[in-house]
Amino acid sequence: MAEPLRIALAGLGTVGAGVIRLIETNAALIARRAGRPIVITTISARDRSKKRGVDLSPYAWEDDMIVLAERPDVDVVVELVGGSDGPALACARTTIESGKAFVTANKAMIAHHGLELAAKAEAAKVALKFEAAVAGGIPVIKGLREGAAANAFERVYGILNGTCNFILSTMEDTGRDFADVLSEAQARGYAEADPTFDIEGTDAAHKLSILAAIAFGAQVDFASVDTSGIARLRAADIAQADSLGYVIRLIGVAEPDWADGQCRLFQRVQPHLVPFDHPLAHVDGATNAVVAEGNFSGRLLFQGAGAGDGPTASAVVADLIDIARGEIGAPFSVPVTELEALPPAPSGHRRGRAYIRFIVADRPGVLAEITAAMRDAGVSIESLIQKGRAGQDGEVLVAMVTHEGPESAVTEALRLLDGSPSLAQPPLVMQLLGN
Amino acid sequence: MAEPLRIALAGLGTVGAGVIRLIETNAALIARRAGRPIVITTISARDRSKKRGVDLSPYAWEDDMIVLAERPDVDVVVELVGGSDGPALACARTTIESGKAFVTANKAMIAHHGLELAAKAEAAKVALKFEAAVAGGIPVIKGLREGAAANAFERVYGILNGTCNFILSTMEDTGRDFADVLSEAQARGYAEADPTFDIEGTDAAHKLSILAAIAFGAQVDFASVDTSGIARLRAADIAQADSLGYVIRLIGVAEPDWADGQCRLFQRVQPHLVPFDHPLAHVDGATNAVVAEGNFSGRLLFQGAGAGDGPTASAVVADLIDIARGEIGAPFSVPVTELEALPPAPSGHRRGRAYIRFIVADRPGVLAEITAAMRDAGVSIESLIQKGRAGQDGEVLVAMVTHEGPESAVTEALRLLDGSPSLAQPPLVMQLLGN
Repeated sequence: MAEPLRIALAGLGTVGAGVIRLIETNAALIARRAGRPIVITTISARDRSKKRGVDLSPYAWEDDMIVLAERPDVDVVVELVGGSDGPALACARTTIESGKAFVTANKAMIAHHGLELAAKAEAAKVALKFEAAVAGGIPVIKGLREGAAANAFERVYGILNGTCNFILSTMEDTGRDFADVLSEAQARGYAEADPTFDIEGTDAAHKLSILAAIAFGAQVDFASVDTSGIARLRAADIAQADSLGYVIRLIGVAEPDWADGQCRLFQRVQPHLVPFDHPLAHVDGATNAVVAEGNFSGRLLFQGAGAGDGPTASAVVADLIDIARGEIGAPFSVPVTELEALPPAPSGHRRGRAYIRFIVADRPGVLAEITAAMRDAGVSIESLIQKGRAGQDGEVLVAMVTHEGPESAVTEALRLLDGSPSLAQPPLVMQLLGN
Repeated sequence: MAEPLRIALAGLGTVGAGVIRLIETNAALIARRAGRPIVITTISARDRSKKRGVDLSPYAWEDDMIVLAERPDVDVVVELVGGSDGPALACARTTIESGKAFVTANKAMIAHHGLELAAKAEAAKVALKFEAAVAGGIPVIKGLREGAAANAFERVYGILNGTCNFILSTMEDTGRDFADVLSEAQARGYAEADPTFDIEGTDAAHKLSILAAIAFGAQVDFASVDTSGIARLRAADIAQADSLGYVIRLIGVAEPDWADGQCRLFQRVQPHLVPFDHPLAHVDGATNAVVAEGNFSGRLLFQGAGAGDGPTASAVVADLIDIARGEIGAPFSVPVTELEALPPAPSGHRRGRAYIRFIVADRPGVLAEITAAMRDAGVSIESLIQKGRAGQDGEVLVAMVTHEGPESAVTEALRLLDGSPSLAQPPLVMQLLGN
């Protein structure tokens, strides 16, 4: 059997400990499948003495991630520190510049600096892999980059954040409100103490921008993802959606948008209404799922655990097995120099159906005011429900679903209502996910 | 850009025409992703003059597949002729012996001769790839072989035959009976004129045996798959399952079975009752779906079109892109010499819940006879329904669901009832799919 592939591990949180456990537990089968053993030689983390449930004594220790990346007895550095810049990025640059392969679960860094790192890796002819950065244990980057590589993709979309999906499906099951369920998610370890990145959609947007680059041969453009989160959702929205035949899920969508002979890239993360008969409507708890629509494959669905030490370690080690087998390849499927700089697509001309929810003052004439604005902007209303008290002082919930029309019309209607004293808070708009 | 990869196509049915259309339509992006163009140079089929909706004039023609496989201007032969032996197998052997890569969608041939071909390919250091042989356009072989390669698999199971799934989900939606829906499936092209391989489970068993070999590092053992089909299912079974919270799906299941320090391989294709809250319960129409349970990844689900020219072509060309990129690798994930010859696992000691349906004569005492046999065999009944007339002369349907227990007890109960004049036909047994 060939020489072992020697791994250095930077970062020893739950995922790092998971990678150690996986490589130890499955050592024999990994060696058989990879054609050579995969062994951890060196480890670096902030605190050497912290209890992690794994025995670190077989491994050399480096306090400094940069020194780790430069060690001559290391073939691949696995970075599990996190953070888009700082030590993680310095470690990535040093690793690649030292001619070593680099594997990471760091979605923020790849979303912000993936192109620079891929260009460096291609120049150095070393592997840069980040399967674990998107959708945890689901091999979706491999699915797009290789399994469905024969296709032009028409759309890629999915549930990319397990925390949000846990919160939404728990709100659905229990009828409880957002803040309440968030607290539970934090207590159960499904949400961070500071949940901002998750609940505001930033984490999903990081992942979406990576998927979009691979699917559409475009430069990663995280800054252009139109992102909104789930914090404004109420139990009443979930109940309304249910009565209309939908569940609410935070969906990231990316698709090429052709107009006037120019291709633009549309990227959005937003809560959507998903019809009961869509596969994503049955994705519950902390699960992730990605749909890729290829021009020959049709709709492909990849589903599994979106986070957690085991699933994330599974994705990290899949990358290591690829490297052990000699698979290097372009990190974004095509060489960085061939990735197109697609301008962001505006959403106004997109056609679809929308759910619009208002919290309004409980007084006569409000409904007439809202429906007049819709009429004036050319928004056609399919159904409308006005729900007694929404639980707070004198507030009433008005929820409507529109017929299909341009998103610009809804924007215009809301502009007409902007500043109206009838509205107790800004309206909430969610798209209905089309089939 | 590097030299083109030169493809010869053997077989020009709908999938062959799909491969030509795909390679022509997506030529530019395939070249970008593969790092080199993929071009068809030569074609072979039985009838050169048949209309196929694609222009064959750019391609050289060979009447003989063996001559095709020997041509020096060919790097890869794609075989889409079908059949486990005969011309397809001769073509495969000649291709590999000529030092060329071989790609096929032929599940029957891989199930029967995959080990021989893989051994030849490994000796010749050429690629043998068959992503399209299992679950059409879904990259599930890649998913097991690479995406989830870090895992020991605990179970692999799924919906592997689109024809059966179309029939079952249509029976479910319409309340119609098997024969009636089969006729419709044949008229709509979802079922062959001779549907035997599909409806008796043989096609699913071919695919299951291939997946099991890859997942468990075992030699392909198609002959040991315990296979039953869907032809005996009645509308009344679907209705009963529905009232209990289940749908019926033809499921292939494979898992390692450890006893007395010996690992055996359990493989079964059988209609199962699938609980509404399981992802496979929502797989409708001609869709396929495969679940792989890894010891670190947890449950991964791959879902998509299980057949059709576009999806199958997508899988074939994904294999070609891999070959163009230089990915050879062991066809069954580990070298053939390392695949274990696992003996087949008996089912008797397996524990589970079963649905048992009897068609009985409409006369007193029958139910007492059946329940006595269950008692004597130690089968505990959870629920039992006796449904008036089942539509035919004096026949009554008795359906029961058992508590969890060994399968051997159910077998013993049915043995006690064997030959009883009360039973109008042999009982039908289906397992309940566990989570």
